[in-house]
Amino acid sequence: MTIIVGYVPTKEGRAALRRAAQEASLRHLKLIVVNSHRGGRDFDAKEAQRFETELGRVQEQLDAEGIEHEVRALVRGNEPSEDLIAIAEESGAEFIVIGLRRRTPVGKLILGSNAQRILLDASCPVLAVKAEDVDE
Amino acid sequence: MTIIVGYVPTKEGRAALRRAAQEASLRHLKLIVVNSHRGGRDFDAKEAQRFETELGRVQEQLDAEGIEHEVRALVRGNEPSEDLIAIAEESGAEFIVIGLRRRTPVGKLILGSNAQRILLDASCPVLAVKAEDVDE
Repeated sequence: MTIIVGYVPTKEGRAALRRAAQEASLRHLKLIVVNSHRGGRDFDAKEAQRFETELGRVQEQLDAEGIEHEVRALVRGNEPSEDLIAIAEESGAEFIVIGLRRRTPVGKLILGSNAQRILLDASCPVLAVKAEDVDE
Repeated sequence: MTIIVGYVPTKEGRAALRRAAQEASLRHLKLIVVNSHRGGRDFDAKEAQRFETELGRVQEQLDAEGIEHEVRALVRGNEPSEDLIAIAEESGAEFIVIGLRRRTPVGKLILGSNAQRILLDASCPVLAVKAEDVDE
């Protein structure tokens, strides 16, 4: 059994990672950090480098906290939701943790399509986490 | 700290309740079961009776499992999402558990508006659970 977290280097992504690490620790489960990117034109060498640096930082932090983990950086043309769900299924995930953006007071009621796909299509539960209000 | 679960007598509602009870037990937290209904024309005496019976059953089960709990049946004209979020905030919820319907293979990508509201507007994390495939 594992906990899967969809990670992106934003404050929502960091909140999801923090929470996923707490859950993995509470349940003594392995944490799989999935950083999935469709690739394509916007994903240049600089962006790839940025992702790699950030994931290195994540690994160091999990090592320091003694949480068993694995980081998978995937750039294979899939929607992030597909990669997350596939990894959750193959590793028998207890649940998937995702970060959600907080709605502004006048914000429209629309969840991103990746978040909706994960929520609707994952066979395991999905824990949706928002960024904290504090500045990071 | 508490775990909040939005409960309706459907298989998704039961899956959410089961999962919420497990989480409350794992974390030694109190479980608050919220059954919120807008009321109005469709909510007649028969329906009210059905809800009451079902909630009684839920309470017995939680008692039997030794999980500290409280059941709140609310019919006060609010959207269920408003009641759930308000109770989560006033009780310092660790997270809210909700049940989601599984999408059929040709199903449209649309989460119900109550689920979207809870996911987007709750300040605590939200655990979205699907019904199991097995018949209940």
